[in-house]
Amino acid sequence: MISWDALFSERAKTMKASAIRELLKLVTQPDIISFGGGLPDPHFFPIHQLQECVHDVLETNSAIALQYGATEGVPALRSWLAEDARSKGLDVTVENVVVTASSQQALDLIAKVMLDPGDIALVEGPSYLGALQAFAAFQGQAIAIDMDEQGIRTDILEERIKAIRSGTRPIKFIYAVPSFQNPAGITMSIERRRQLLDISQRYNIPIVEDHPYHALRYEGTRVPSIASLDADGHVIYLETFSKILSPGFRLGWVVAPEPFTRKLALAKQATDLCSSPFNQLIVLEFCKRGYLEPHVAHIRREYAKKRDAMLNAMDEFFPKEVKWTRPEGGMFLWVELPKGIDTTEMLRDALEVKVAYVGGTGFYPDGRGENCMRLNFSYSTPEINREGIRRLSECIRKRL
Amino acid sequence: MISWDALFSERAKTMKASAIRELLKLVTQPDIISFGGGLPDPHFFPIHQLQECVHDVLETNSAIALQYGATEGVPALRSWLAEDARSKGLDVTVENVVVTASSQQALDLIAKVMLDPGDIALVEGPSYLGALQAFAAFQGQAIAIDMDEQGIRTDILEERIKAIRSGTRPIKFIYAVPSFQNPAGITMSIERRRQLLDISQRYNIPIVEDHPYHALRYEGTRVPSIASLDADGHVIYLETFSKILSPGFRLGWVVAPEPFTRKLALAKQATDLCSSPFNQLIVLEFCKRGYLEPHVAHIRREYAKKRDAMLNAMDEFFPKEVKWTRPEGGMFLWVELPKGIDTTEMLRDALEVKVAYVGGTGFYPDGRGENCMRLNFSYSTPEINREGIRRLSECIRKRL
Repeated sequence: MISWDALFSERAKTMKASAIRELLKLVTQPDIISFGGGLPDPHFFPIHQLQECVHDVLETNSAIALQYGATEGVPALRSWLAEDARSKGLDVTVENVVVTASSQQALDLIAKVMLDPGDIALVEGPSYLGALQAFAAFQGQAIAIDMDEQGIRTDILEERIKAIRSGTRPIKFIYAVPSFQNPAGITMSIERRRQLLDISQRYNIPIVEDHPYHALRYEGTRVPSIASLDADGHVIYLETFSKILSPGFRLGWVVAPEPFTRKLALAKQATDLCSSPFNQLIVLEFCKRGYLEPHVAHIRREYAKKRDAMLNAMDEFFPKEVKWTRPEGGMFLWVELPKGIDTTEMLRDALEVKVAYVGGTGFYPDGRGENCMRLNFSYSTPEINREGIRRLSECIRKRL
Repeated sequence: MISWDALFSERAKTMKASAIRELLKLVTQPDIISFGGGLPDPHFFPIHQLQECVHDVLETNSAIALQYGATEGVPALRSWLAEDARSKGLDVTVENVVVTASSQQALDLIAKVMLDPGDIALVEGPSYLGALQAFAAFQGQAIAIDMDEQGIRTDILEERIKAIRSGTRPIKFIYAVPSFQNPAGITMSIERRRQLLDISQRYNIPIVEDHPYHALRYEGTRVPSIASLDADGHVIYLETFSKILSPGFRLGWVVAPEPFTRKLALAKQATDLCSSPFNQLIVLEFCKRGYLEPHVAHIRREYAKKRDAMLNAMDEFFPKEVKWTRPEGGMFLWVELPKGIDTTEMLRDALEVKVAYVGGTGFYPDGRGENCMRLNFSYSTPEINREGIRRLSECIRKRL
């Protein structure tokens, strides 16, 4: 008999079943109110427009759609994405764009081409769970920098950079989700974005700007992306169709300086040769027909109602000892319970009353966040969001 | 300015633009006769049946198709694939199956969970270029074992294993493409498969059996897969829809012992969360409607003609000093020119007369294969295959 454990790599030995994974399983139980995953509401998938796009792609372009494609992405989609990036103020050409299997693959490839074991990635505290997993899978060392209501604390960041630079391991990048952050729901202010860029330039550390939710703003005014403020090629910018159209296509894209996209494409080639040209052409068709903007406007209106229902229910039901963020957009908010309440333990009570969420510790590389949790408001209806918060408030009261 | 080179990981520093990559670019020039890629003939893509499947998936199952899915794959597809594996003599359940973004991702994930820097993968010489790239991307060390017309030389293999085991780095697996091998076109005999399995059992080294072409047999009798001969869980078995349906969906699957599939799924989660549920449901629908077998029977008949046209042209045009394999199936054959002719240099002559192929050195981890080349016969028509071989014969004569 093979002893598999003895054959696994050092990086594989650290891989453990995670909260997202277990929660995607829970979500398939129909009577659970899930605040867990980062799922779009399937009721709003634009099925008829997609039917039209798929039909025409297969009818007119099957030899490209169903064949192997270029590793960097289908040229026509890359051109469209480059044009889209330029319209958002990024000074780029098609050579700066690589299509990926959603942002998760972009994070995997970034880690693959940048992180040797022990190399440091600076992240927001809390940070996106899937990014922490991607970096850990290459034995990178994520170090969390606290946030306040303006986003990452750039003063603490700079102090940490100075301290780390006297050590032996290099800092390879700063990872941030500046708009409607996952998990905290915080939006980084323009001043903070400029300070972050300034630090990046002074210390020559690139910024990985993960921007999946930026189009989902429900109130307040737009803040420019860090990439659009960057004149010197310090930003690796990530977007995805998962939150604005459908995660089922597994399509995202990276916009970055050419020395980086060239290396990223080489890494992608050894990883999966290319992303589905079929899905790329469908999504391109959807965009070219002008369906994306009205669709996003529609889900923006609907998700705003869901967010409001959750926030109103929290105002109404949550005990006064509980704190939470009020996101201006996105899909998540972050709840802080009084110290001493362990959200991982409390999840058992919550599941008994059929409510799921993700406990806070998974969002910190250092075990913090024990008394915190991330709630998603985009998946369920406003009414169910309200009911879920009511039930959750009872779980919290029991533990106070 | 950022110095990107200084930020890349050790594994990324070894990544270089490859033959497959450059050749996928050439293929897009319409007047090139391409013997380069491993491309199916797009004329045979079953467009109308796919239209039907896509339409019904979107109409009846969009909430699953367009949403995030389980990392291991859509449950209904995994069940179908487990049943398919059982029908091929593998003693497995759904827990042994993980859906991947085609076999290239399976190879990437296998390397990710098994290879620490310097760890050894034993491969056939020559071996599949994409596998060598996937292993190198994790700083694995591939060592090629010669083949004869029966497949891998198990006598040499055992000697090498004994010699390596006295060294410091472990052997993590043996990678083989036993049926219609890529690139050599050789099919491993049943005796050799049994010997390979015996070595695997005696030395406790798993076999990665890559089986993408097995359904594409044009003559001779079927040889059972190594996995179907294995009673003790020593085989990690890979299949893909790329060669039998369409590479454009980017879907393959792994069948392996559960301790391995569990770890593979964890690695996949950090890599891309899941493969496209949309594409998974389309392919499942195609299979469940009974469209796959008649489709494969159709392309088998057509590819047989393409192979015959190429082999007949080689008999007719190639100088007598040239040797080549006569594959019973698959997509490739392997040509050995007299020593001293460098196929990488000769490619320039070939491209002048508008013929592309892949030179032999990329298929060896150790720089051998200089006088060899891989020819693909599945992409072009029989007539074009003949014409391409005629032109290639002139390039060869010039160098003799």
